[in-house]
Amino acid sequence: MTYCVATLLDTGMVFLADSRTNAGVDHVNTFRKMHVFERPGNRVMVLMTAGNLAITQAVVHLLRQQASDPDSDNLHTVDNLFDAAVQVGEALRTVHHRDAVALKEHGIDFSASFILGGQIHGEEPRLFNIYAPGNFIEATLDTPYFQIGESKYGKPILDRVITRSSSLAEAAKCALISMDSSIRSNLSVGPPLDLLCFRRDELRVLLHRNITADDAYFSMIRSGWSDSLRHAFHALPNPEL
Amino acid sequence: MTYCVATLLDTGMVFLADSRTNAGVDHVNTFRKMHVFERPGNRVMVLMTAGNLAITQAVVHLLRQQASDPDSDNLHTVDNLFDAAVQVGEALRTVHHRDAVALKEHGIDFSASFILGGQIHGEEPRLFNIYAPGNFIEATLDTPYFQIGESKYGKPILDRVITRSSSLAEAAKCALISMDSSIRSNLSVGPPLDLLCFRRDELRVLLHRNITADDAYFSMIRSGWSDSLRHAFHALPNPEL
Repeated sequence: MTYCVATLLDTGMVFLADSRTNAGVDHVNTFRKMHVFERPGNRVMVLMTAGNLAITQAVVHLLRQQASDPDSDNLHTVDNLFDAAVQVGEALRTVHHRDAVALKEHGIDFSASFILGGQIHGEEPRLFNIYAPGNFIEATLDTPYFQIGESKYGKPILDRVITRSSSLAEAAKCALISMDSSIRSNLSVGPPLDLLCFRRDELRVLLHRNITADDAYFSMIRSGWSDSLRHAFHALPNPEL
Repeated sequence: MTYCVATLLDTGMVFLADSRTNAGVDHVNTFRKMHVFERPGNRVMVLMTAGNLAITQAVVHLLRQQASDPDSDNLHTVDNLFDAAVQVGEALRTVHHRDAVALKEHGIDFSASFILGGQIHGEEPRLFNIYAPGNFIEATLDTPYFQIGESKYGKPILDRVITRSSSLAEAAKCALISMDSSIRSNLSVGPPLDLLCFRRDELRVLLHRNITADDAYFSMIRSGWSDSLRHAFHALPNPEL
C-alpha cells in the first residue's frame, strides 16, 4: 500500500510519500513514490504515485523518456501545470492501452492514481489529482490538500488543521502526523518517507529529505503526538454512566 | 454508510452506532442499527449492523421472529455467545439463499456485516464480528474492540487509547471521539447515535442513550476534541525547513 499527501499553501507546497510497496503481505519492499521534475528558475514539479507498481513505474518511465527529448511536449517543456497533468494522463492511457487487457486476463485491476503539483514560471502553484482513466481534478481554494493511497486514517488531522494560510513548516508537521496515523493503523504503509517542500515563486526545490524510522524529528513527532492525544483524551471529562 | 464500534473491557462493554443510511446520496434516512436482545439477569446481547439495509433488516427480522418462539434455538435461549453468533450467521445464510441471486441480477453485492457482543449467565462477556458469508471471528485479549462500516477515520484514536483495562466511561468517551472523526470526514455517517453500555456480570443494560446532534455532552466532546487537537498540534515544534 501507499500513502501520499500534498498541500497547496499561500506560501508554497509540501509533499510527503511513504515508500513501502507490497504485493500481498510477503513481498514488501521499498520503492520511491515521489518523482521530481525540476528546471531550477523555470519550474518545479512533483509527481507521487499509488496503485499497481508495475503500472506507475511504466508511467514514470515514459514521462522521463519524453522529458529527455527536448523537441517533444513533455514535463520539462509544457508551459502550464494543466498541460503537465494532461501529459501524465496521456502516459497512463498509453500504459493502459498496452497492459490493461493482459492484466484483466489475470484478474488484476488497472489501478493507478497520481498527485501532480508544482509551479511553472508565469503561473501560480497548482495541484492535481489524476485518476486511472487519465482524467483529473485540480485543487481549488477550498481544497488545500490531496491524498492518494491509504488516505482515511490520516485525513481527520488534515481536515482540522490545514488551510491555505498554514506555513510550510506547519504543513510539513501536519503531513508527518497524518503519515504517522496511517503507519500505526496500516502495516503496509511505512518509512522511509520522502518529504519535499518548495516556496512559491522560487521555482526550485527548497528541501527534499529522506526520513528514516529513526529520524530524530519524526520520532519526536510520533511520540509527542501520541502523548498529546492521550493527554487530551484524559483531560476531557468522562460521560456520566 | 454506517459506523459502529464495540469495546470489550474488563468491566463490561460499550457499543456505539450511528443511524444514517443512504442509498446513493439522495435517499438519506435514519434507521436504527443497534438491536438489543435482553433477558435481565440471564443475558444481554447487542447486535449492530452495516451494509445493505434490506439484507440487515431481513436478518434482524428473522432473528426477532425466532426469538419469539420459545421452543426454538434462538438468541433468547442459546446458552453461549458463540452459538448466538452461529444463529446470526445462519440467519444471514437464509437471507443470502433467498436474495443473493436476485441482487446479483441487479448488479448489487450481497454486503452485510455484524457486530455481536454481550454476556450470557455462566460465561464471560464476548464480542464477535460476523461477515457476509456467515462466518465470524471473536475478540481476544489483544483486540479490545471491533468496528464495522466506515471504520478507518475513527480507528487511530481507538488504537492509541483503548485497552481491556479502560473504564466504561473512558470507552464511551473514546467511542464518541472516534465517531466524531468519522462524521467529520464522511458525510454519510451521522447522528442521532445509539450508545449502550452494560457492566460485566450485571446481565442487563446499564445505559441506552439516544444522542442527537445537539446533545450537550457530545457537543462538548466534539468542540473540546477539536480544540485539544489544534492546541496539541501547535504545541509540537515545527520542523526546520
